[in-house]
Amino acid sequence: MSNAQAKKLTSVIRHQVPFFEVDAIQMVWHGNYVKYLELGREEFGRQFGLEYMYIFRNGYVVPVVDLHLSYKKNAHLDDVLRIETTYIPTESAKLMFEYAIWRESDNELILTATSTQLFVTNEGEFELSTPDFVRAWRAKWM
Amino acid sequence: MSNAQAKKLTSVIRHQVPFFEVDAIQMVWHGNYVKYLELGREEFGRQFGLEYMYIFRNGYVVPVVDLHLSYKKNAHLDDVLRIETTYIPTESAKLMFEYAIWRESDNELILTATSTQLFVTNEGEFELSTPDFVRAWRAKWM
Amino acid sequence: MSNAQAKKLTSVIRHQVPFFEVDAIQMVWHGNYVKYLELGREEFGRQFGLEYMYIFRNGYVVPVVDLHLSYKKNAHLDDVLRIETTYIPTESAKLMFEYAIWRESDNELILTATSTQLFVTNEGEFELSTPDFVRAWRAKWM
Amino acid sequence: MSNAQAKKLTSVIRHQVPFFEVDAIQMVWHGNYVKYLELGREEFGRQFGLEYMYIFRNGYVVPVVDLHLSYKKNAHLDDVLRIETTYIPTESAKLMFEYAIWRESDNELILTATSTQLFVTNEGEFELSTPDFVRAWRAKWM
Repeated sequence: MSNAQAKKLTSVIRHQVPFFEVDAIQMVWHGNYVKYLELGREEFGRQFGLEYMYIFRNGYVVPVVDLHLSYKKNAHLDDVLRIETTYIPTESAKLMFEYAIWRESDNELILTATSTQLFVTNEGEFELSTPDFVRAWRAKWM
Repeated sequence: MSNAQAKKLTSVIRHQVPFFEVDAIQMVWHGNYVKYLELGREEFGRQFGLEYMYIFRNGYVVPVVDLHLSYKKNAHLDDVLRIETTYIPTESAKLMFEYAIWRESDNELILTATSTQLFVTNEGEFELSTPDFVRAWRAKWM
Repeated sequence: MSNAQAKKLTSVIRHQVPFFEVDAIQMVWHGNYVKYLELGREEFGRQFGLEYMYIFRNGYVVPVVDLHLSYKKNAHLDDVLRIETTYIPTESAKLMFEYAIWRESDNELILTATSTQLFVTNEGEFELSTPDFVRAWRAKWM
Repeated sequence: MSNAQAKKLTSVIRHQVPFFEVDAIQMVWHGNYVKYLELGREEFGRQFGLEYMYIFRNGYVVPVVDLHLSYKKNAHLDDVLRIETTYIPTESAKLMFEYAIWRESDNELILTATSTQLFVTNEGEFELSTPDFVRAWRAKWM
């Protein structure tokens, strides 16, 4: 799926686990990682010019249609996590990312994940061909 | 603040505490009660014809501008809570509610709260006088 | 992965989408479905005697180690969703479920998902062989 | 309530509003501010040596028993918020804080709030007199 010739675009953001994200068995509740992935995508957008608002102004929203999370280790209160978000090159009308979340203190791998998003017009129609602004973005960065 | 002659409008909804609402010290995380109050208001809206979508179709949104929560007892995993939402009569351009949350199994009072909402037009302006549809609603129910 | 001879154990629970689960593009925020899956597993536990607290009293917690969500349609404010949770038979030391979430009003399929949980002792060790209480549960229900 | 002679202890932490904290009317969902207050208290704890884990190791948890939020302006996607948390001096067996949340870009005041926490022993009993470690903390900082 990845293109060996493509540059690998990865953003990094740190997040310290607050009390309200820890569950009754003292670990980060597994559903909170979906938030961490979104924090990762938002940082990617800021760093590489692909923010939600930029996409929205181009006439699209990009709902997640597939999400796969693989939990490796537990994270705990106050852990500082490093969320790495990497763009997966594709020619199709999708946005795909892979993620790795690490604990800073001991460099343990906590979670890996992938996500797929489709382009939906502001009128609610799925876009089957890649929007022009995305082609331009790919031409610039890939 | 309450009008002794007014009918007391109260709705009731039940909610069983799921695992993801319990915190690291085995009680419902205190912030989740704000969700329970919203569940209460939504049930009130369904029962008495004041749903968010009805308000929205009348040209308004009703953001919460004041919220006061008083925690009495802890609730725990699997507790069935009874959320009582009572309309506080007022002549001003506000929606005010008071809440009591009880545990069904032992009838313990878990939390009391009050909320105040203002009317904001779909253009984002605060409405200083009570909207007509609210006057009509009050005339019907009070 | 499924055992053709096994009885199919499925639980059903309904959930009406509250305002606080809807995102800025007017659909259920995609991360909230992880909560819906947990609501589904909890209902399964109540119906078939496999509650978290029962597992805990037998000396284990069951963290989710793999989660795969496939989004089919958007759900919206006030939609009543039907969450179906089906036990996936396995001989190994795991709990596996598959899920289908439907909208009641038009019977649209909103999401499918699968989850895998492992057994971890209260001392924090992964259990490599199936715990006795799980063998007993399987013998009773499968 | 405040002691004019006491030093004013205030911590500051910044938080950028992610997509998942914005609601269907494009503003931060009002319940998320309870999370922001907890982020504020946690930063206060780190800066002034009063972390949850420190309190816990001294034999106590500190549940919130009263919370009052006053919403001034709406915050939106990508806003950078500055959360100021100020210790309110008291002689009684409580922890009290006041909060102000500002938007960095235009220095608008978004929310003010107060919280009260009580000391509960690890055995679940309310502590009526101020714990020794809190007296020591007050002697050091006030």
